[in-house]
Amino acid sequence: MRRRAWTPPLSVWGGIHPDSGSSEDIDAALVWNHPLDDLARFPRLRLVMSLGAGVDHVMAFRHLVPDGVVLTRIVDPAMTAQMTCWCLMVMLDHLRRMEDYRRLHRERRYEELEVPLPRDVTVGILGLGVLGGDCARVIGGMGYQVMGWSRSPRHIDGVTCQSGLEALERFLAPCDVVICLLPLTRETEGILNARTMSWMKKGAFLINAARGGHVVEEDLVRAIDDGRLAGAALDVQRQEPMPDDHPFWYHPKILTFPHIAALTVPETSAPQIAENCRRLHTGEPFINIVDLDRGY
Amino acid sequence: MRRRAWTPPLSVWGGIHPDSGSSEDIDAALVWNHPLDDLARFPRLRLVMSLGAGVDHVMAFRHLVPDGVVLTRIVDPAMTAQMTCWCLMVMLDHLRRMEDYRRLHRERRYEELEVPLPRDVTVGILGLGVLGGDCARVIGGMGYQVMGWSRSPRHIDGVTCQSGLEALERFLAPCDVVICLLPLTRETEGILNARTMSWMKKGAFLINAARGGHVVEEDLVRAIDDGRLAGAALDVQRQEPMPDDHPFWYHPKILTFPHIAALTVPETSAPQIAENCRRLHTGEPFINIVDLDRGY
Repeated sequence: MRRRAWTPPLSVWGGIHPDSGSSEDIDAALVWNHPLDDLARFPRLRLVMSLGAGVDHVMAFRHLVPDGVVLTRIVDPAMTAQMTCWCLMVMLDHLRRMEDYRRLHRERRYEELEVPLPRDVTVGILGLGVLGGDCARVIGGMGYQVMGWSRSPRHIDGVTCQSGLEALERFLAPCDVVICLLPLTRETEGILNARTMSWMKKGAFLINAARGGHVVEEDLVRAIDDGRLAGAALDVQRQEPMPDDHPFWYHPKILTFPHIAALTVPETSAPQIAENCRRLHTGEPFINIVDLDRGY
Repeated sequence: MRRRAWTPPLSVWGGIHPDSGSSEDIDAALVWNHPLDDLARFPRLRLVMSLGAGVDHVMAFRHLVPDGVVLTRIVDPAMTAQMTCWCLMVMLDHLRRMEDYRRLHRERRYEELEVPLPRDVTVGILGLGVLGGDCARVIGGMGYQVMGWSRSPRHIDGVTCQSGLEALERFLAPCDVVICLLPLTRETEGILNARTMSWMKKGAFLINAARGGHVVEEDLVRAIDDGRLAGAALDVQRQEPMPDDHPFWYHPKILTFPHIAALTVPETSAPQIAENCRRLHTGEPFINIVDLDRGY
């Protein structure tokens, strides 16, 4: 958009990539997996706004983001709620054996299956930001034992929180279900690998609602085939869509989803973006700023 | 058990039906779908304890329960948690289209399906006792719009509560999902019938976790076939197990479960039963008493 005195209602100039308008006029960019080298040609750029909750798509090309530019992301209760619901759905589907009961119904068999009580199930949540925190709150409120892990220390009522890579083995060991809601950073890339999965409880179930890059995919297949993990539900994969010959498509204990756990909601995201555009012009501090050093 | 001075630890005399011990000695009975006319032969009976949360199996034969006998039920957080989890599982399975996504995965199709945001979904809960209250609390905490209905007025924070049969039409009209967690009484028998289902929103989904007797089963099949309801998940049926030719087994939009939503948990139920046995002897007021006039 053009730099100008702020006069509500919001009017926006500029354009949509690759017709991004006059490069001298652009001071803010909305991005989602855009070619970021494009940003270098905007000398007045001050604000890059990711259209999603995660900013790894920008951080991976951070060197292409001009110095002094602020990066923001979407923090949206409507996205958070979607994410928690998706995690709960796949967790309950696994723990309460929905698919087995569906099969019994189809076969007209009236049989009770063994399932654990919530209080006997430990759910571990990797990542205790907005998304992980909400997930922990809801799952804990349902009577499950909830533990949380994050890179830096966090406190959540009713949740046993641990932090730092050195605590990861101790954190993973008792978990019946592990839910990954981490930001994707240099530290968390490939964090779910052969070594860390060997620390997981035998029969544990993995849920990844964060980024495909958190999981070393061949290690996950091996951990399931070795009987270490019971299975996995994955909203994200390293390559999306997965190629036709990807083993996840064919594995009976892996269920993939097309990155739909939490979609950006225009009605609630647009006001946040408009607000940051307004602040760009008034000079007020931005909301939902990403710490470029931490990467989230 | 024999009537005697109370000396902990608990020792129990008596027997298991039909070898229920000497009829003169019995002062308490634990029941679950027992032939209740059997109770009439215990002249000293003072306490009948249902092994479940519901007592309709006793209330239906209330005339056979000797006068002056107190009826108790199980109120167990471990059962409540199971129930809420089951309701959530089948609700999310429906709303977030788990089965459709499972099919897409099997067919190796990476496609996004339309699903509603939690805040745009209204969930109506019939019955606001211990079970309905917990369900309302958790579902509301996930960002859904929650409404509750009960026979007598109730208040639950964050839940729009209505009460009385005259409010039922107004209550059902906006609900996208209706969850039945009512006690089964004379007033609620067959409460989900052709007339009340005609008040439900087109495309609504019915979840019954209470008793088969709440639903007029042929009316439910017709309401789904007419396109009024989208489908149903039913933990309970009028006859359990259903006969082989029951239409629920064959209906593509009805999923049945073998009454497993919430099982009595011995570790948490036994102490409640022991406590009421103790109180029988000390004369203290019983816990978890059923109001015989209300029937729950």
